[in-house]
Amino acid sequence: MALTETALIERYFRSCGAQRADVTLGIGDDAALLSVPAGSELVAATDTLVAGVHFPAGSPPASIGHRALAVNLSDLAAMGARPAWALLALTLPEAQENWVEEFAAGLAALLREHRVALVGGDTTRGPLTVTVQLLGLVPQGTALRRSGAAAGEALFVSGTPGDAAAGLALEQGRMQAPPEWRTYLRERFLWPSPRVALGEGLRGYASACIDVSDGLLGDAGKLAQASGVAAEISFAALPLSQALRGALDEERARMLALSGGDDYELCFAVPAARVAQLHADLPPQRWGYTQIGTLREGSGARVVRDGSVMQFSHSGYQHFP
Amino acid sequence: MALTETALIERYFRSCGAQRADVTLGIGDDAALLSVPAGSELVAATDTLVAGVHFPAGSPPASIGHRALAVNLSDLAAMGARPAWALLALTLPEAQENWVEEFAAGLAALLREHRVALVGGDTTRGPLTVTVQLLGLVPQGTALRRSGAAAGEALFVSGTPGDAAAGLALEQGRMQAPPEWRTYLRERFLWPSPRVALGEGLRGYASACIDVSDGLLGDAGKLAQASGVAAEISFAALPLSQALRGALDEERARMLALSGGDDYELCFAVPAARVAQLHADLPPQRWGYTQIGTLREGSGARVVRDGSVMQFSHSGYQHFP
Repeated sequence: MALTETALIERYFRSCGAQRADVTLGIGDDAALLSVPAGSELVAATDTLVAGVHFPAGSPPASIGHRALAVNLSDLAAMGARPAWALLALTLPEAQENWVEEFAAGLAALLREHRVALVGGDTTRGPLTVTVQLLGLVPQGTALRRSGAAAGEALFVSGTPGDAAAGLALEQGRMQAPPEWRTYLRERFLWPSPRVALGEGLRGYASACIDVSDGLLGDAGKLAQASGVAAEISFAALPLSQALRGALDEERARMLALSGGDDYELCFAVPAARVAQLHADLPPQRWGYTQIGTLREGSGARVVRDGSVMQFSHSGYQHFP
Repeated sequence: MALTETALIERYFRSCGAQRADVTLGIGDDAALLSVPAGSELVAATDTLVAGVHFPAGSPPASIGHRALAVNLSDLAAMGARPAWALLALTLPEAQENWVEEFAAGLAALLREHRVALVGGDTTRGPLTVTVQLLGLVPQGTALRRSGAAAGEALFVSGTPGDAAAGLALEQGRMQAPPEWRTYLRERFLWPSPRVALGEGLRGYASACIDVSDGLLGDAGKLAQASGVAAEISFAALPLSQALRGALDEERARMLALSGGDDYELCFAVPAARVAQLHADLPPQRWGYTQIGTLREGSGARVVRDGSVMQFSHSGYQHFP
C-alpha cells in the first residue's frame, strides 16, 4: 500500500525517537529548534547507507534503520560525545508501508536506547539511500579527536573486529560457517552496537580516538597520521571472537580483524602513565577493549608478527575508485 | 579520472565554504565540533535532491550544488534563522573529477554568499543523490513557525512564484517560450535565491512563515493548517514575473504560480496592525514581497476569483505515491 509523504511521516516518524525537553520544535515545521546548554560544544556527523553498497538490497528493513543510526552514533562515540538529536533523509523507490514500518521500528529502538530525538528529515522517491545526521553534545574542550596521540602511547581497540565483515560475507553467501557461529556473526553485521558509553568514558583518558568502520588497520593509520606518529599493531594481540575463530582458520580470522569493515568499534590511544588508571576505572573485561599495539615515532600503520613487519597489498576500504 | 574518496574530499570540499571562528573542528575527523553562542537556539534542517526526481539527470553540476544548499537555506529562512554550518552527504555513481569540481564550485559560491562553513559530510558510491544538512542560529524565542497566524491577518509571498516550475518545464522540453524569457525562467529553476535576509527581517513582524517549495497553494495550506485558520488567496493578486507573463497566457501563468514547485520563496502572515510598520521597515518593492490574501476562520486554502472560490483537482506536490 502506498502512503503519501505526509501520512508516512505522521504515522512512522513523528513519534519515532526519544522525547527530550531540549527539543523546542521537532518534526513538522521547516526546521527543528534545539537548545544547546551553556558549556557544551555541538558535535555533528552524517553518514549515508546506499542499498547494494553498504548493505545487501534484501537486508531486513529494521536492520537498515538500526545501522543508519548506528554508523553515526559510532562517529559521535569516537568524539566522546553524547548523542542528542537526529535528522533522517530517506530516499525510497516507493513507499511500501510494511517496509517503512519495519525500518522505523529498527531506527526507533536504537534512538530510544540512546535517548536521541528524531527532530526532522526528508522523504524522497528514488533509489534506496538512507542518510542520518546526528547531533550531540560534549563538555567544552573535552572532545576526543584523531589527533593528539604521541609516540610511546598504548593503542587499543574495543570489541572483536572482523566479526561484521564475516557476517556480511555470510549474508551475501561469500563465506560458509558452522551454524553455531553463523547467527552471531550475521548479527554483528546487521545489529552493530556503537560504543557510545565507552567513548564518553574515555574522555580524560584517551589522547586520540577514531571510529573503526573501514577496517582496523586503515583506521588506526588515520589516527596515527592525524597525530603525526606511526601505529604498530601486534598481529598476535588482535582480539578475536570465539565465533570468528570457529568460522575461519586463525590466519584468516586475524586478517579479517585487520581489514574488515563495518565494525563500529573504537580505536584509541592512551598515554602509558594513564593505562593503569584507565584499567581501574573502566575494567577492560567489563568495557570490552584490548591493547593491540603501541604508537611509535614515524608514520603509517604496520603490523608486527614474530618480530617482523607484515606486508599487505592494501589497507582499509575506499569507496572510490 | 577517478579519485579516491579521501583525495576528493581534500581537493574539493575541505576549503569549500566560509571560514568561521565558531568551528572548533571541521572536515577531517569523525564529527565536527561547533560553538553555539549563549542566547541562541540551534536550527536544523535537511533536504535531499535525487537525480531524475528533483533535477533533470543532465543538469549543470554547479546548479545541483547550488540547489542542494539553496533548498535548505530556504528552510532556515522560513524560520527566520541565520545559517551557519552545513554537512554534505553526496552519493555519486562514480567520482568524475570534472563533475565534482563543478558541483563543489556551485556549492561553494552559495556557502560563501551566506557565510556558511562546510564542516563535514560523507561521500558514497551509488545513484546520484545529494543531501545537505544545514544548521543555523536564531535568538532564543524569536524563530518563525508555521503556526501562530490568526484570522484577519494578511498573507504575503516573496518573489514571483511559478517561474521555477516554468524553468523546469523549459529545461525538460515540456514547454516552449520566446527566447527573451527562456533564460530568465530556466535560471529561476537552476539558481534559486533563498530569502535568508527576508526571513531574518521578518522576525518581529510575521506571526507565521513557511518555505514555498511544493507549490504556493499547498504550502499556504500547510501554514493555515498549522495555525488553525483558513488561507484565502486572491487569484488576481498573485505576483507574476514579466517572463512568466511573456511565456504563458495569464490564466496558465496564475495557475502555475499557485501550483508550481521549486520556488524557494517565503509565504508569511502579518497581523493587520503591523502591516504598515512592515512596509515602512522592509519596503515591499525593495524586499520583493506581495500581499496575496488574508487568513480567515476555518480550515484549508482556497483561491478567490471575481468573488467566487475556484475549484482545483489537487494542490501542492507529493513525492508519494
